[in-house]
Amino acid sequence: MVHYFPVENLKFKLTIAYDGTAYQGWQVQKIGTGVQEKIEQALAKLYPSVKRIHSSSRTDTGVHALGMVAHVEIPRAEFKFADARLALALNAFLPDDIRVLAAVRVPAAFHARFDAIGKQYRYYVWNHHAMNPLLYQRAWHFPVRLDPKLMRAAARLMVGRHDFKSFAGTREYEMKSNVRTLTRCDLRKHGHLYTFTIEGDGFLYKMCRGIVGTLVQVGQGKIPLSEVATILTSRDRRVAGMTAPACGLVLQEVYYPSRKRPSLTGEKTPVPDEDSPA
Amino acid sequence: MVHYFPVENLKFKLTIAYDGTAYQGWQVQKIGTGVQEKIEQALAKLYPSVKRIHSSSRTDTGVHALGMVAHVEIPRAEFKFADARLALALNAFLPDDIRVLAAVRVPAAFHARFDAIGKQYRYYVWNHHAMNPLLYQRAWHFPVRLDPKLMRAAARLMVGRHDFKSFAGTREYEMKSNVRTLTRCDLRKHGHLYTFTIEGDGFLYKMCRGIVGTLVQVGQGKIPLSEVATILTSRDRRVAGMTAPACGLVLQEVYYPSRKRPSLTGEKTPVPDEDSPA
Repeated sequence: MVHYFPVENLKFKLTIAYDGTAYQGWQVQKIGTGVQEKIEQALAKLYPSVKRIHSSSRTDTGVHALGMVAHVEIPRAEFKFADARLALALNAFLPDDIRVLAAVRVPAAFHARFDAIGKQYRYYVWNHHAMNPLLYQRAWHFPVRLDPKLMRAAARLMVGRHDFKSFAGTREYEMKSNVRTLTRCDLRKHGHLYTFTIEGDGFLYKMCRGIVGTLVQVGQGKIPLSEVATILTSRDRRVAGMTAPACGLVLQEVYYPSRKRPSLTGEKTPVPDEDSPA
Repeated sequence: MVHYFPVENLKFKLTIAYDGTAYQGWQVQKIGTGVQEKIEQALAKLYPSVKRIHSSSRTDTGVHALGMVAHVEIPRAEFKFADARLALALNAFLPDDIRVLAAVRVPAAFHARFDAIGKQYRYYVWNHHAMNPLLYQRAWHFPVRLDPKLMRAAARLMVGRHDFKSFAGTREYEMKSNVRTLTRCDLRKHGHLYTFTIEGDGFLYKMCRGIVGTLVQVGQGKIPLSEVATILTSRDRRVAGMTAPACGLVLQEVYYPSRKRPSLTGEKTPVPDEDSPA
């Protein structure tokens, strides 16, 4: 049976940016504070009946985001703003290290996690004997000289459909299948800064950091390029390189199927920046 | 008379980066802490007889640097390292928000301030309703939409030899001449981030921030483009736009004449990064 009555709840897609330095990751934690908790507290200030937001994914302690996505339902009867003002109202109750970049109304069927078809992460490495103080806690300081050619060649081997078990942390409940498809894995160099871009249909726990840690050890000469293909096929975490530290990682964007639907708000879906530094 | 004896002091050129958020600017202050003081304290740990470093310039409270230059003299008899290790040794005594990027030996005649022939500043503006939390204290959050075409046209008018009194703060002892030559004044846009690059043979007090504040008000439509030439020729601070906040400004590089001289250390003069984000 199809309901033609107005739905009781309005659903919003939130695009969220945060500096993860001060948080125990995204998820609500028993010890320490999660980013999710801060956003739920801000929502509760506006809508006491709203208890939960549902995110596309989690991030670990110290990991940053410029394009985390979550959805939230707000009872239509309680909603007090023009849609475009919801982000501003939430930001008024959030600390400076968490910002809602956009809040757009989405159809009732939208689900931030189940509808996501891919994600893009960035990873920043500062490769100089002295750290750039303006990137402190925002990039991995790696003082030993890296060879970009070796890292690029190794990165190309990651692209495609592979079992990424060799690069993932162990988390039993995510162990059903370790096969994921990376559509992009490359790096750019600007002076001493390396920016890795990793894009795929899904990511295992700590997979990005395992890939970057391995690529960096290839660039350092510690892991021969010729071994990377073997590491991929061995499906054994012990054979790959180190796990890169959390502070260099940024969840840049979460992808959803583009829908040809009439805009409910007149506001366009936000397009995260291609080149914003983190 | 030319001395062929070894000089008593070794002179080093230090290239210094800092996050200016926690400091009352570069200079040693009566109230609050200057960046200079922190570096002098670190030097004193290694060489108690070394009291002062001499910088190319000062920066105001909250202004950052990636390429501040200072020179220091260390008695040859006391010097304990291979030259290349001086930066590492200093960094061991410095807080994380100040780093010596390079320390290279220079001829006794080198003077960080008097030999400087030009400087490059960068200014970062984040132009979106919500601030990017990864650029908090590193960019000016300007929430009103800016027109890059208007700002670019106004920026072009700044290039060349002008009396910049309209854009400078008042400081009597720098008021002998307000004529400076800008060799570059432009902006790039990456997503919501604007990066202004301003390069010239010298800068009046708060001149960069006066120029950026004016350009931004042009971009906002508050100051007509047609008025910018008039502002420049009026030599009156009251007619130009606002002073942009300190947190968006980075001293990117200080230029010196290139010398064809044999390297004393085998270490190359550091080349600051063209594209490092701040």
